[in-house]
Amino acid sequence: MSLYEPPLRSVRFLVNEVLKAPEALAAAGWEDATADLFDAVLGDAGRLAADVLLPLDRSGDEEGARVEGDGVRMPAGCRDAWALWRDGGWNGLAGDPAYGGQGLPGLLDMLVTEMVCAANLAFSITPGLTQGAIRALAAHGDAAVKERCLPPMLAGDWTGAMALTEPQAGTDLGLLRMRAEPVGDGTYRLAGQKMFISSADHDLTDNLVHLVLARLPGAPPGTRGISLFVVPKRLSGGARNGWSVLSVERKMGLHASPTCVVSYDGAVGWLVGAPNRGLAAMFTMMNHERLFVGIQGIGVGERAAQAALAYARERVQGRAAGGGEGAADPILHHPDVRRMVLTARALTDAGRALAGWVALRLDRAAKDPSLAEEAEDWAALLTPVVKAAGTDFGFEAAVLAQQVMGGHGYIRDNGVEQLVRDVRATQIYEGTNGVQALDFVQRKLGLHGGRPLARMLEAVEDAAARLAGSPMTAGLAEPLRDGADRLRGLADWLRQEERDPRDGAAGATDLLRLTALVAYGWMWALTASAAARRPAGYDPGFLDARLGLARFFMTRLLPETAMLEARIRSGYAGLDAGLADGLAGLDG
Amino acid sequence: MSLYEPPLRSVRFLVNEVLKAPEALAAAGWEDATADLFDAVLGDAGRLAADVLLPLDRSGDEEGARVEGDGVRMPAGCRDAWALWRDGGWNGLAGDPAYGGQGLPGLLDMLVTEMVCAANLAFSITPGLTQGAIRALAAHGDAAVKERCLPPMLAGDWTGAMALTEPQAGTDLGLLRMRAEPVGDGTYRLAGQKMFISSADHDLTDNLVHLVLARLPGAPPGTRGISLFVVPKRLSGGARNGWSVLSVERKMGLHASPTCVVSYDGAVGWLVGAPNRGLAAMFTMMNHERLFVGIQGIGVGERAAQAALAYARERVQGRAAGGGEGAADPILHHPDVRRMVLTARALTDAGRALAGWVALRLDRAAKDPSLAEEAEDWAALLTPVVKAAGTDFGFEAAVLAQQVMGGHGYIRDNGVEQLVRDVRATQIYEGTNGVQALDFVQRKLGLHGGRPLARMLEAVEDAAARLAGSPMTAGLAEPLRDGADRLRGLADWLRQEERDPRDGAAGATDLLRLTALVAYGWMWALTASAAARRPAGYDPGFLDARLGLARFFMTRLLPETAMLEARIRSGYAGLDAGLADGLAGLDG
Repeated sequence: MSLYEPPLRSVRFLVNEVLKAPEALAAAGWEDATADLFDAVLGDAGRLAADVLLPLDRSGDEEGARVEGDGVRMPAGCRDAWALWRDGGWNGLAGDPAYGGQGLPGLLDMLVTEMVCAANLAFSITPGLTQGAIRALAAHGDAAVKERCLPPMLAGDWTGAMALTEPQAGTDLGLLRMRAEPVGDGTYRLAGQKMFISSADHDLTDNLVHLVLARLPGAPPGTRGISLFVVPKRLSGGARNGWSVLSVERKMGLHASPTCVVSYDGAVGWLVGAPNRGLAAMFTMMNHERLFVGIQGIGVGERAAQAALAYARERVQGRAAGGGEGAADPILHHPDVRRMVLTARALTDAGRALAGWVALRLDRAAKDPSLAEEAEDWAALLTPVVKAAGTDFGFEAAVLAQQVMGGHGYIRDNGVEQLVRDVRATQIYEGTNGVQALDFVQRKLGLHGGRPLARMLEAVEDAAARLAGSPMTAGLAEPLRDGADRLRGLADWLRQEERDPRDGAAGATDLLRLTALVAYGWMWALTASAAARRPAGYDPGFLDARLGLARFFMTRLLPETAMLEARIRSGYAGLDAGLADGLAGLDG
Repeated sequence: MSLYEPPLRSVRFLVNEVLKAPEALAAAGWEDATADLFDAVLGDAGRLAADVLLPLDRSGDEEGARVEGDGVRMPAGCRDAWALWRDGGWNGLAGDPAYGGQGLPGLLDMLVTEMVCAANLAFSITPGLTQGAIRALAAHGDAAVKERCLPPMLAGDWTGAMALTEPQAGTDLGLLRMRAEPVGDGTYRLAGQKMFISSADHDLTDNLVHLVLARLPGAPPGTRGISLFVVPKRLSGGARNGWSVLSVERKMGLHASPTCVVSYDGAVGWLVGAPNRGLAAMFTMMNHERLFVGIQGIGVGERAAQAALAYARERVQGRAAGGGEGAADPILHHPDVRRMVLTARALTDAGRALAGWVALRLDRAAKDPSLAEEAEDWAALLTPVVKAAGTDFGFEAAVLAQQVMGGHGYIRDNGVEQLVRDVRATQIYEGTNGVQALDFVQRKLGLHGGRPLARMLEAVEDAAARLAGSPMTAGLAEPLRDGADRLRGLADWLRQEERDPRDGAAGATDLLRLTALVAYGWMWALTASAAARRPAGYDPGFLDARLGLARFFMTRLLPETAMLEARIRSGYAGLDAGLADGLAGLDG
């Protein structure tokens, strides 16, 4: 079985020494968000994750969610786990106290969420979507909608789902056809079919809501004619609303998460936000979900990194170059195995730090409006990075852990193959990682004249200067500055007037990855500088490992930026390649 | 459903225009290995693959192989498919006519095998292992063993399996404990347990053999005390031999291929080759299997490349930069999607060409002993490359195809998620790709004073010179030469006396991948030069696509060599990273 130890020591170091979150939160007006509070809540969350959610991970994968009678039945144990989740108040951790939430920082909620994702990725989806739905309703709903929905959602009595995709409209929501008709009493009747709706139905709670995108009569075509509606499962009095789950998809992984096809047949809904402005409202939810999905990748990466290390320490096979004394050594002594173990670890810890950086800035801005512009810059720029890099590197970590384990990683018993199957979805849903890359290149790089990127590059230079100022870390500054220079140069290159507009799209995935590597290097810089201060409360081996991982990242992983730059600068020409439209010549 | 068109046009171009196989075979003494023969056999094989094996791929995955009664039962349809395979003479295609084989070139067998792997990877395993067992028995068995085993194996009445792994002995076969006792009549009795034995039992045929590694009484410890035995399922007269399948593993994929735990309890076996020299004999089989497993990756890559292209042509979503006229374009017009489609295609075609290059040289040497030294150099150097790169890139192609398809690639119905699950095993079995990399760096690079690598670098320079000599291809020469220079420089760097012996192991995976990229670039050079000649019988779009893919490969994929070189030159130091043994500081 795949084990999982909540990484409490690493998280404490990140919160207190790297991000210095308690001080930063206090300075912005957060009261009581102390290091002790973080410790206590994370300790409780870690126990819930390891003791309750982890044991259901494999059995949920085996059993799967399914349609039974007029609804979706979740695998054994999920309902009891949800009851513990609800009773622990976890659904309202970061919620508005005016509606029953606990009002704790989003950073803390993110760290709790990572543990849930690590222990049981399928379970994490329902609360993760509910959090996003709560934010969208809080931001765009009218008083009646908020009064109706937020208290039970924050209490964990209701959950939320997001109904966007239709068979002909996936990435391109402008193509959607679902209709909503006003009936004159302030409600609407929705008709049409949606697919790929995670947690559209389940038996965890008695009620739930969908946030549904649909078109009002006479709405303009494309994305400017889409409105957002909240559509419950049960109406007041308990009657079922007019929608039903037609089927649950059979998937590569995430078997315990129902991915539903839903038919709406005159279902009652309430408008959220202004007519025809639904996509903007839905983006409040989607932006939260994109950060959440990044955390999903990081959680799986954590579990994979732990599995790789544990196996590599125990499995004895072959004499390593420069290895030990016996007939064979633990495979951790084999450089190629060590490379895989360190890669999984270095990518995971940096991903957590970067997501935490964004969460902390959003938290501060929530209390201090003077910090809002800065926080919005960070969130705009880094949301696609956290989503795509968190999930791509989470997948890479899971594949590496499987490779470290050899055949034992391929059989089901050891659980790592499930991590690979489960995390694979995170690179696809909530906007594929290619869509994240286009968002980054086409919308985020040039936002406010490039202000968010300039902000990041300034922060990277600050971190590099701090590295350079200490003998323990001075050697790390140059590779980081080199990566930042590449990023700055590429952003300038893309802004050139003579640039083929297709060059940005052609290099989008590579540029997002390059940005992620620079950002991860920056996080390792902050981490190394914190470790070099030798703070009390951490044993020397732990602090040395932070420095060793930072060196490993700068030496082994950051050089990928050279390849990425070469590819990006090759532009669209290499993709066009004189091939006719439709690429008929590619057929075998 | 995932479709598959046997890539007959591409294969014909490779055989006749790139490798010029019919002339090369004729010059070495092969009679009748004409272009027409290749066409006819490959046409038949393609029909078998597409019409018989492909329809069983998904159902076999759903049903799986299982232990039933005293043996393994294969999924529905497999037994009938095997009967067609056997009756078509496919098992003996390249076998020795003295024992009933057809004596056709191994290159042709390889191309047939690729189609089988593409259509049904699980099915491919039994014949693939049988081919290796035939080669080992033919090379090392005495006359009695050959007379007993080869005719039914070549006829497809028996199959072969390879029993190496024990719980404590995987990569490190020196640790194995299985015992074999002589009983004085020329036979041995084997006792012990083996695991991870593919096709150890099935109901495709009435009999089968295992090639088993075990220790004779008093054998020295380690790899110098291992002998090879052939152990049938049924003894003459039909009685079951003394072994049984304890269980079939539940795996991520390849459900229709039984991976068995076998208990040998006094099973009768015959020695193959000299006592204590079993590992060398087994390597005859393993070297064949490593090439075969590379072909498995290429076959899956072909199917994935087809799936990605077909979906990208049909799926209409979003306006592309520089796209068409309507509200949305086929996603093939989106540069990021095109990147994924072309990557899957470029990696697959080059992999096939490289494997074909090796197979052709082995075929020529089989008829003309004066060519043996050269052929052995090629096989020694390129076997780990074909195995590791064929499977790594096959996995990458399958993951890319899934990404192109978005959510439709994640659900089971479309079959691509199964490709990902199935092909993942090929990076692990038959020596993990990390083991291939160590073999390459530690044994193959310096073999015969570096002669095989020098041979390859010379061939690459010849190909680059040909590129440079034609205006249609001249721009491709420099990137290829640049890659070759990096490889040459790194080989020299590793040979330096002051080199830490751990540097090679630390960079092994990266150096094998760099070598593969240079070799794939070389194959694209040969392909581009062949296309630039505009041979008759191919439409211009097909020939232009060869040139376009070659440009794509040189521009987009070959620059990875820069990153790999930087990593390799960082040596062991970045992995050591001052971390204490056991890396205790890495715990969370």
